[in-house]
Amino acid sequence: MSRSNLPGAFASEVPEPIASFLVVPSSQLWAQAAATDLPTLLIDHGNCELKAASSALALMHRYPQHEALVWRMSRLAREELRHYEQVRQIAKQMGVAWGTRSASEYASGLRTCVAATEPQRLVDTLIVGALIEARSCERFALIASLLPDRLAKFYRGLLASEARHFEHYLELAEQAANGPIAQRLTALLHVEHQLINAPSTTIRFHSGPPVSCDVDAIGLASQA
Amino acid sequence: MSRSNLPGAFASEVPEPIASFLVVPSSQLWAQAAATDLPTLLIDHGNCELKAASSALALMHRYPQHEALVWRMSRLAREELRHYEQVRQIAKQMGVAWGTRSASEYASGLRTCVAATEPQRLVDTLIVGALIEARSCERFALIASLLPDRLAKFYRGLLASEARHFEHYLELAEQAANGPIAQRLTALLHVEHQLINAPSTTIRFHSGPPVSCDVDAIGLASQA
Repeated sequence: MSRSNLPGAFASEVPEPIASFLVVPSSQLWAQAAATDLPTLLIDHGNCELKAASSALALMHRYPQHEALVWRMSRLAREELRHYEQVRQIAKQMGVAWGTRSASEYASGLRTCVAATEPQRLVDTLIVGALIEARSCERFALIASLLPDRLAKFYRGLLASEARHFEHYLELAEQAANGPIAQRLTALLHVEHQLINAPSTTIRFHSGPPVSCDVDAIGLASQA
Repeated sequence: MSRSNLPGAFASEVPEPIASFLVVPSSQLWAQAAATDLPTLLIDHGNCELKAASSALALMHRYPQHEALVWRMSRLAREELRHYEQVRQIAKQMGVAWGTRSASEYASGLRTCVAATEPQRLVDTLIVGALIEARSCERFALIASLLPDRLAKFYRGLLASEARHFEHYLELAEQAANGPIAQRLTALLHVEHQLINAPSTTIRFHSGPPVSCDVDAIGLASQA
């Protein structure tokens, strides 16, 4: 049995720093389901790239005097937009009509945990950014081996390109907190684990395993 | 008397297509006032670049199936973000502490004219985008000759880089309208002329001449 097929283990392509950071892996059942609906995978992933760029710009608007944050977010937004363009290009070449898909509850669920007042609001927002970036990279790695060659190559390229994004968010969170963030990170990780592996009736880039699966049988209960 | 010093004339550096499109030039008094407060000019101009990127992303979110719009806006947003980074870099090198500046009423004034319902809402939004882009380029040209060499070179570079943006917005507006937009453009141009040369108590990138000036004496009344 390969590492990627072990219940509760990270797929072998997931970089070790990302696996260590996330602690709990995504369900393989998500990847198997997502690979059967490539239009939805591409459209929802594209939407995630665009939202990541928008979130970066929102931080730039809100904290214009935070120089390190502004530099990092502007470059990150440009990169996410390039990736958005690439997703759309590939979708077009595959004959996928770009449609709409409702957002999953993953990012919005994490954002409900962000403190309402500063300075914790910024710290939380940056930790949430780190979690979303790391989980996205894990999912690039998880889905790649199940995709046609060209898409697999594309997702491995994105993984290489975005693999350090979560560390950039974490560094900024530590700067904003002016001290350790371990306790808050643990709390938000706990929420992330609940959201990312919550059985879902729809397939999205950050959805959980399909709701119709017998999750207990493949050991998901032990991951929660 | 050079062309740039004529009341009611465009500065000689303004590209002819932009001057023809805008019809009415900015007041030279704006440029003279703005050149005396470079921190405000840079900070407010930076904010304009960031807002332009955010507006482009908002259009991508709202009209994801409008392919030509999405491609154009994504590239435009990346370019505006690069310019934002450049403005901040120059400000930093000049020792300007990046502060906050209230927004002028120019862009918000134009946006109050945008129709509330589709398809006119999109057409209007794109015409407003064309107006803001063209006026920004005119102001790059107008201010350049009054600035220290390095800043002058920077603004001339931005002018070259952004000189065709207004045409891209116009092409998209014509596509969205599925027909001529001349009548609506004329109406919005009229509002733009009122906003851009309205005497202002604050200096901003899109503000009018300083309120304390005797505007009648320099022929502004004949431009309105």
